[in-house]
Amino acid sequence: MQDTWRCAIRVADLGEFGIIARIVGRLPQFPAVLLGPGDDAAVLRAPDGRVVVTTDLLLEGRHFRRDWSSPYDIGRKAAAQNLSDVVAMGADPTAIFVGLGLPGDLPAEWLDGLTDGFGDECALVGASVAGGDIARSEKIVLGVTALGDLGGRAPVTRAGARPGNVVAVAGRLGHAAAGLALFLAGRGDLPFPGLAAAHRRPEPPYACGPGAAVLGATAMADVSDGLLQDAGHIAKASGVRIELESRALPVPESLAEAAAELGQDPLGWVLTGGEDHALVAAFPPETRLPPEWKIIGSVTEGEGVQVTGYEAPHGGWDHFRE
Amino acid sequence: MQDTWRCAIRVADLGEFGIIARIVGRLPQFPAVLLGPGDDAAVLRAPDGRVVVTTDLLLEGRHFRRDWSSPYDIGRKAAAQNLSDVVAMGADPTAIFVGLGLPGDLPAEWLDGLTDGFGDECALVGASVAGGDIARSEKIVLGVTALGDLGGRAPVTRAGARPGNVVAVAGRLGHAAAGLALFLAGRGDLPFPGLAAAHRRPEPPYACGPGAAVLGATAMADVSDGLLQDAGHIAKASGVRIELESRALPVPESLAEAAAELGQDPLGWVLTGGEDHALVAAFPPETRLPPEWKIIGSVTEGEGVQVTGYEAPHGGWDHFRE
Repeated sequence: MQDTWRCAIRVADLGEFGIIARIVGRLPQFPAVLLGPGDDAAVLRAPDGRVVVTTDLLLEGRHFRRDWSSPYDIGRKAAAQNLSDVVAMGADPTAIFVGLGLPGDLPAEWLDGLTDGFGDECALVGASVAGGDIARSEKIVLGVTALGDLGGRAPVTRAGARPGNVVAVAGRLGHAAAGLALFLAGRGDLPFPGLAAAHRRPEPPYACGPGAAVLGATAMADVSDGLLQDAGHIAKASGVRIELESRALPVPESLAEAAAELGQDPLGWVLTGGEDHALVAAFPPETRLPPEWKIIGSVTEGEGVQVTGYEAPHGGWDHFRE
Repeated sequence: MQDTWRCAIRVADLGEFGIIARIVGRLPQFPAVLLGPGDDAAVLRAPDGRVVVTTDLLLEGRHFRRDWSSPYDIGRKAAAQNLSDVVAMGADPTAIFVGLGLPGDLPAEWLDGLTDGFGDECALVGASVAGGDIARSEKIVLGVTALGDLGGRAPVTRAGARPGNVVAVAGRLGHAAAGLALFLAGRGDLPFPGLAAAHRRPEPPYACGPGAAVLGATAMADVSDGLLQDAGHIAKASGVRIELESRALPVPESLAEAAAELGQDPLGWVLTGGEDHALVAAFPPETRLPPEWKIIGSVTEGEGVQVTGYEAPHGGWDHFRE
């Protein structure tokens, strides 16, 4: 008796059109999609008359590992980091497009998990996975593009921060970095499952992006390279200096405990850890900020980023280093 | 005396921000780009209130080879195949975004060639390279997304062909396939330099896409998987049968000569060769077609694609096969 019946279906067994049909069948299309997958290109509503666009390339082994993250979490994370870039402009995400490089022996169920991850993360913001492309690849490759609509608002760039503004963050800082440090130390999930989960799947404060635009944010960035570096991008683009108050930076208990366990500095994670996709923004000082935004510093004349009460060991993440 | 002065600069020497600066410095931005590279996302004009979007993933060794094509040609081809998908909807391309996976030891000059290829192909249609992403990768990865504006026209999908319509093509068919066959046979450039060039770099009939929409095309597709297969996509989406007349298919002299040289069938290349990015479209029979469009068949009741006077050996290209 053969045991081939136990073998999982591989994506190579499905063929190009079988793979596409399997993916498309799992993804709802929201009303902003006028024409979805299946033609030469998709057609989306862009009611504002402008469209916000960002793209990211994620490579297996470099940006994610199959042994550390489930396919579902990889899909959610890949979608999240692009959707976060859209909301960091003050826009509402409308759709993402995914170029997929897949090994032929990848189980079809793995692809289903990835697809559901993309779909569920997008559904959080009412966006659709509106198209894509597949190719055969030795390792998994994800080329993700996200689009958004400004709804009549001016885009919030990195260039508008002015001396006298306050600097505030929304979302988590350092959690993903702590989770990664736990994995690298071979500690996996225990004893800080929340931090490991933060490495696997960010929870960007999506609504805070368009919200900041409405509140009158003068500059905003997605924290993907670390707070120091991304605040530095705002400082440079705006021609100002940003002063962060180390005592104002949020260091929750789990972060402090994990740092003690590993003999590391929790504030280092908060200042230089990327991948949580918090938002950092500058606001006029009179702005009444809702509780999602925590003031962590101010904008002054000058250049660069200073952290009061802390010696910064490292400037952030270069996506091209070894 | 050291001879390190002779070493080319590698992209790893430039670092992430150095690479981005080098790329951005070579790329003009056209007026449709309201905010170009350098922020969390770009902002493009979408004056129509809708936006056309397509994405493709191109992998070294699978979609291109560095020993067969120059970086400039690879950039032009990668841009062309995406821009072609945009015009196949009847839209005018506005911008492309490029996710770049690059080996660290790639010479910076190679990257310059690729960048110029992207920029020059986009400039043909007035589109900008408006953003992107870079990551370190063992082999070169190109994740390309193209956007376009419909200018008030209805998108020309694959689904509108009606019995009684004529079927016409604009652009070249089979040239890239002939060029590839020459490379595979080890014949390289000689004696048909035009065909080898067609493999390296398509020349899509960009203006014919929006032009077809204005002429009233009922369905249209970019020929990227071969005429038979892409006409088949129209037939299936439209619920019709497409009858192609083999004697009407264009077989230029160079194609016939190369086929004789290799002992292959030139009509096979014309019917199943992709990568030339011709356009195939259906039009109402009374349409006065300009000379760029050549009538090659008609739409009838039924299903599938029939080629009168030819026995089709192969249905087209599956991008996921080995």
